[in-house]
Amino acid sequence: MKISGVRIVIVGGGSSYTPELVMGLLEARGLSVDTLTLVDVPAGQEKMDIVADFCRRLIKKAGSAIRLETTYDRKGALAQADFVLTQFRVGGLAARAQDERIPLRYGAVGQETVGAGGFAKALRTIPVALELAKELETVNPNAWLINFTNPSGMVTQALLRHTAIRSIGLCNVPITIARTIAKALAVDPEAVSLDMFGLNHLSFVRGIYVNGQNITSLVLEFLKNPQTAVANIPDQQWNAEVIGALGMVPNPYLQYYWNPGEMVQRQRQEVEAGRGTRADIVMKVEQELFADYRNPEQVTLPEALMRRGGAYYSAVAVMLIESLALNQRQEIIVNVRNGQALPELPEDSVVEVPAMVDGRGAIPLTCGPMPASVRGLIQHVKAYEELTIDAAVTGSRQTALAALMNNPLVPSEEVARYILRDILQEHAAWLPQFA
Amino acid sequence: MKISGVRIVIVGGGSSYTPELVMGLLEARGLSVDTLTLVDVPAGQEKMDIVADFCRRLIKKAGSAIRLETTYDRKGALAQADFVLTQFRVGGLAARAQDERIPLRYGAVGQETVGAGGFAKALRTIPVALELAKELETVNPNAWLINFTNPSGMVTQALLRHTAIRSIGLCNVPITIARTIAKALAVDPEAVSLDMFGLNHLSFVRGIYVNGQNITSLVLEFLKNPQTAVANIPDQQWNAEVIGALGMVPNPYLQYYWNPGEMVQRQRQEVEAGRGTRADIVMKVEQELFADYRNPEQVTLPEALMRRGGAYYSAVAVMLIESLALNQRQEIIVNVRNGQALPELPEDSVVEVPAMVDGRGAIPLTCGPMPASVRGLIQHVKAYEELTIDAAVTGSRQTALAALMNNPLVPSEEVARYILRDILQEHAAWLPQFA
Amino acid sequence: MKISGVRIVIVGGGSSYTPELVMGLLEARGLSVDTLTLVDVPAGQEKMDIVADFCRRLIKKAGSAIRLETTYDRKGALAQADFVLTQFRVGGLAARAQDERIPLRYGAVGQETVGAGGFAKALRTIPVALELAKELETVNPNAWLINFTNPSGMVTQALLRHTAIRSIGLCNVPITIARTIAKALAVDPEAVSLDMFGLNHLSFVRGIYVNGQNITSLVLEFLKNPQTAVANIPDQQWNAEVIGALGMVPNPYLQYYWNPGEMVQRQRQEVEAGRGTRADIVMKVEQELFADYRNPEQVTLPEALMRRGGAYYSAVAVMLIESLALNQRQEIIVNVRNGQALPELPEDSVVEVPAMVDGRGAIPLTCGPMPASVRGLIQHVKAYEELTIDAAVTGSRQTALAALMNNPLVPSEEVARYILRDILQEHAAWLPQFA
Amino acid sequence: MKISGVRIVIVGGGSSYTPELVMGLLEARGLSVDTLTLVDVPAGQEKMDIVADFCRRLIKKAGSAIRLETTYDRKGALAQADFVLTQFRVGGLAARAQDERIPLRYGAVGQETVGAGGFAKALRTIPVALELAKELETVNPNAWLINFTNPSGMVTQALLRHTAIRSIGLCNVPITIARTIAKALAVDPEAVSLDMFGLNHLSFVRGIYVNGQNITSLVLEFLKNPQTAVANIPDQQWNAEVIGALGMVPNPYLQYYWNPGEMVQRQRQEVEAGRGTRADIVMKVEQELFADYRNPEQVTLPEALMRRGGAYYSAVAVMLIESLALNQRQEIIVNVRNGQALPELPEDSVVEVPAMVDGRGAIPLTCGPMPASVRGLIQHVKAYEELTIDAAVTGSRQTALAALMNNPLVPSEEVARYILRDILQEHAAWLPQFA
Repeated sequence: MKISGVRIVIVGGGSSYTPELVMGLLEARGLSVDTLTLVDVPAGQEKMDIVADFCRRLIKKAGSAIRLETTYDRKGALAQADFVLTQFRVGGLAARAQDERIPLRYGAVGQETVGAGGFAKALRTIPVALELAKELETVNPNAWLINFTNPSGMVTQALLRHTAIRSIGLCNVPITIARTIAKALAVDPEAVSLDMFGLNHLSFVRGIYVNGQNITSLVLEFLKNPQTAVANIPDQQWNAEVIGALGMVPNPYLQYYWNPGEMVQRQRQEVEAGRGTRADIVMKVEQELFADYRNPEQVTLPEALMRRGGAYYSAVAVMLIESLALNQRQEIIVNVRNGQALPELPEDSVVEVPAMVDGRGAIPLTCGPMPASVRGLIQHVKAYEELTIDAAVTGSRQTALAALMNNPLVPSEEVARYILRDILQEHAAWLPQFA
Repeated sequence: MKISGVRIVIVGGGSSYTPELVMGLLEARGLSVDTLTLVDVPAGQEKMDIVADFCRRLIKKAGSAIRLETTYDRKGALAQADFVLTQFRVGGLAARAQDERIPLRYGAVGQETVGAGGFAKALRTIPVALELAKELETVNPNAWLINFTNPSGMVTQALLRHTAIRSIGLCNVPITIARTIAKALAVDPEAVSLDMFGLNHLSFVRGIYVNGQNITSLVLEFLKNPQTAVANIPDQQWNAEVIGALGMVPNPYLQYYWNPGEMVQRQRQEVEAGRGTRADIVMKVEQELFADYRNPEQVTLPEALMRRGGAYYSAVAVMLIESLALNQRQEIIVNVRNGQALPELPEDSVVEVPAMVDGRGAIPLTCGPMPASVRGLIQHVKAYEELTIDAAVTGSRQTALAALMNNPLVPSEEVARYILRDILQEHAAWLPQFA
Repeated sequence: MKISGVRIVIVGGGSSYTPELVMGLLEARGLSVDTLTLVDVPAGQEKMDIVADFCRRLIKKAGSAIRLETTYDRKGALAQADFVLTQFRVGGLAARAQDERIPLRYGAVGQETVGAGGFAKALRTIPVALELAKELETVNPNAWLINFTNPSGMVTQALLRHTAIRSIGLCNVPITIARTIAKALAVDPEAVSLDMFGLNHLSFVRGIYVNGQNITSLVLEFLKNPQTAVANIPDQQWNAEVIGALGMVPNPYLQYYWNPGEMVQRQRQEVEAGRGTRADIVMKVEQELFADYRNPEQVTLPEALMRRGGAYYSAVAVMLIESLALNQRQEIIVNVRNGQALPELPEDSVVEVPAMVDGRGAIPLTCGPMPASVRGLIQHVKAYEELTIDAAVTGSRQTALAALMNNPLVPSEEVARYILRDILQEHAAWLPQFA
Repeated sequence: MKISGVRIVIVGGGSSYTPELVMGLLEARGLSVDTLTLVDVPAGQEKMDIVADFCRRLIKKAGSAIRLETTYDRKGALAQADFVLTQFRVGGLAARAQDERIPLRYGAVGQETVGAGGFAKALRTIPVALELAKELETVNPNAWLINFTNPSGMVTQALLRHTAIRSIGLCNVPITIARTIAKALAVDPEAVSLDMFGLNHLSFVRGIYVNGQNITSLVLEFLKNPQTAVANIPDQQWNAEVIGALGMVPNPYLQYYWNPGEMVQRQRQEVEAGRGTRADIVMKVEQELFADYRNPEQVTLPEALMRRGGAYYSAVAVMLIESLALNQRQEIIVNVRNGQALPELPEDSVVEVPAMVDGRGAIPLTCGPMPASVRGLIQHVKAYEELTIDAAVTGSRQTALAALMNNPLVPSEEVARYILRDILQEHAAWLPQFA
């Protein structure tokens, strides 16, 4: 890989997230991007064209020389890439809406990444991700695949287990927590270190340091009042006793694990009130966004992006690309093969932990052992993830049922069976492996 | 320890289980019991006297020379013991009834050994068990403490972690499964081997062998229809798809983990129908039992014992004592320190696995790795158990809350907080460590 | 496998060890052997005929109905076997003599199983053992292969790693230690339990129990004077300080690891005095033995067998066959896949540890952790074994050199290179994988 | 700790290494050192005064404001330190000379850090290091102790196991290898990353990267000819076959493990030729050095320092202090608590591996598993180190003998006993724990 002249390919280039990513690359000092290629399926032509035009305006305004291309020839694009960023969505937002509704029927959490909704998304997405990765393996085995596609941890684990490509999974939650703390304390983001561990959307901040000083208990006290929020999740404060019992900052997604009944109730209320599920809301935001993108006068990121969720996504992606491309040694919290980073989890699991990233890739820091207060839940969910990946790859209905029975957000084996039946029926078009 | 002339002490000697145990000892070929000492608290005098008289009739009828004594001097009795059997119940059946009712208030399973009920029992029982064990450590460190007291796995783990005594925990579920299979196939119980692993009341039979022949799939097919039942648990068949997904025979207690909603509903119906919880039923059975025991004509085990639960308890206890006392090498499924028997669990956990038992003690067989389909649940519950033991010993309310939040039968952190509050209030007399 | 009517095949049936094995089977109560088939290569016809005739006389004298057959059709014999016993010797005693002489040239221990001699034997033997095992895998995958062929640990590890057959490795050292202790104390051999662990010819007795009583320190005191000897190893006492530092009974082969200089000196003296290496002595004993076997009046085991080494070999083999065939649950020290029996060694290593043996096979008991005083040496030799097996299978000269450099009995990388060169040259006929 | 105004204490301040360290601190951009305190024992007054005066000239010449103090009040100095650097030598160079001579008597390697010489040094040094650390624990538990004292790995392990201080061990070999490669390729030292693992003086470079590009095979080819040398070790090239078999760059100290006979021969020749052991040579170099230091005209580091060994010692020390003091995130190869960095070694071992160092301390990167070609040797030596530390702390002669028997450079248990006897006799004054 050349230090300058980086070539980036975005698969699912017509996504509404693309402009933010482009903005991030434009702001990246030191990194010289040569070509940016958006790849999508022909059915997504209209969206990709709108996004591409808007991005070209952003590039032009920034006075940058980045060349932006679009193509439907995925294989051709992959062959030329230094970095491949994936943000495709199998079945689109319509399938996501279904993922959210099916579990709700049986009183279970309906969510894009956790619970039975995340399970359904994994079954649809993993085979497509593996197909892409095997293509990359053939035409360009040294490229980096940076995976944004949710459920990010499971997709990355499938990629690392079943292909030989170089892949790192990303999530915006860790950087959001770090930046939120930096802002609150008015310190340089560089000064903040997080001792954070777990799985994607199931992680915990065990230690918070500013310039090496441990300020964890300060933050925990603060957390017993308001809170760091992520737009994807309904705003909610943590109970002070819960924070006291943990002595750690939980990923906001823990709300689903610790208050599933309340989350189900809220989701049902939204649906009954006619506001629909999160997918329905996102569809509306996307309409606004694309209206803005289409507007030839629009040369800045529209305000609606804030409501889209995914804060700092581009920031962490750019950090990662810089470290890999420029051999900058940075500590970044990413989704990587566990090895012995968390010794209580299988070695070939993907975990979300701090890694030293440079031109060689992401080397996880040792971060075990996990405290008993969350170790069991993480192990339980990892077993669920392992079974889910296995089911997605083999199309085994038995393994799929075993997976769902291990998901803490599925309340019984009976509900697991009903949800599985509905998923396999209603998403049949996207699940050929189960045919 | 002398090979002949074994001295056995039963702590909680006034228990309705004692006569069955005595019967087991009377039937044990090879084992020569010298003295059997029942120990209880003065408040239990009446029951202990009734039990002792009845047992003396059993001994006399068998033509045995066993001497049966009663005492309230626990320390004195412990000092003379080769084997100490514990079956005391802190707070009696009244406390158990409370354990069952508190969780039900909040829609959670109310049960003696699993869920929040087992948690409450552990908090009350562990300090008393440790006190007894430390006494034994002082006066007779080479004696064997055979623990029947529920939750048997957690109590045994507390004993092995916090004292230096030699202790083995027992449960009747493994032997019940083995004997049920032997009966169904009309083979010698000795011919049946179980490849079984997990925790007390959370175990799985991975392999079933008759004279070394693997008959697991045969049994699984059979299991998809009727089933091996344990009197403690409402009769219920396993769903065939669930058995297919597992490929293993689950401990009947798994009904609580996989169908908690249904179990709660049944428990509530029983209460609403005026039949009360399991504790209430047991109280009635106990009345019958003691009426029978009191009857001077009664010289055989009364039929009501069958409804008491605990089938084969005496059989497995006698097997264990024979192996230890006579250096017989037998494979028995017991609750022992894990070491590396199940490598995905902490080394100082207590697990329920096959062990080679002889005069040296119980040496667990290697039995890892665990299949992903149940590994996560077992790890989750083990973390809960570890936190519960820690809370029982330290009296930390924070650790207690962390424990309950890790119990898969507690549906939310909110319910965990309510249940914990009620337990600490309503059992305050039995929980001085939290004062 | 039928409980009665066991069919046993001995590969390398013309070995001088066969009659002792037959005697063991004749004495085995309970075990009913139907057919015993000796298999050898045509070049071994004369020896096999002599052995077969002698064994038939032993069978006749015992009044047994065992049918003894000979054949050169190995595949045909394997297809009919319940148990396959291997005691072949690739290259015969002549190759062994070479194994002993090559290292001596460079001042290194020359021995059949440890050091560079054992390395050479492994390179020759493993491919032949694997060929046999793959044949068995094809024609009779449920048969048991009981491996006597040295180096027994490495050969068994190769079998378990590279084939799917059921194999257990045997050595006579553990049973010799147990029986020696039983004799010394005049107790029933059944009363003695050994807590023994390590690798074949690199094992340690950490605990000795009689009827469950720990008598280890008694034995250690006794050991500081005379000692349990094995005929294969020149008689030698352990230094009392060494025993004190260990607190364990070392396998007699430890003499090679802890006193290599002295062992080399003795071996050289034997050679210079014209007595040759151990192989030369064995050749002479074999001549005597075959003279006795040939004698039609000979109907008992000849006295010269005692000088042949291998005491109790038949005893442990028969114990193992009885446990497997009759589903007798016995604790036997065997060479098995480690799993987590010794957690500081790789899971797919073969280790020499106590196992519970019944009709299912040999399930190792948990026996970790190893004391630091011997852990490192065992790990070092296991790495050497792993590399040696890898070299034997792949024919990689680089891996072979890495293996020798890891053998503690090879004094330098320079000597390793010289010895490897000589082995590959002088045994070229037996090492086609390196061609 | 203040980001500016760092206070550094050097224990063993009169060492000839001190001026180089001071020079390193003077060259450190960004790091602002307030006070530098040299501590020594009164017996070392003359040397410390010479060193202090020379260092003050270096400081003055650099135009720096660092204040340099000397004291014999160790406790007082420790109480004020941000960083404590240890480079004391128990028994001085005279004891080192003895360490080198005793093993040579019995044909074993006589060296300061490896073999029986390193063992003797560890026995003398560890109690003194622990005494210092416990003082620091009391008066200033947040200070960093940066350990230079050899054997650096064992001393650091003793500190981390037996005290609660924050300590990191340093060695100059890793940085020397990295800088040598950077020089040879004429690239920025920052561009070079080493994938290096093992123990102090027993480590291996598995991967070499320049700006993320893997150039390992290139370096290995190069290594088959000349070589990276360390002044402490007699110049010697690696055999090309050995490098081929390993596929890694060995630490130069591996010469002792792989060619002990040749190393002994050379050491004996040096002694017989009247040049003495390495200690004798160092004593002469020290005389020259102190002559130079004493010279008021000397305001640069004297040329003789190059012959002293220890290249880049100050470079790596300054890097470490900068990272810790300024929260700079750097990857540095240090001696740290293992955790799971090398999963085949005990968790509380100290290992030499890459760590992410910032204001929080040194967090080791995951770097397992180790290749079989060196895993066993490393495990063997780690067991030796563990036993040595235990012997140094407890004064157990049995443990000391077990330690020596596990050192691959001690050829037999007999030699181990003789060497141990001589060490305990001849160093009795420095080994009160064995009295």
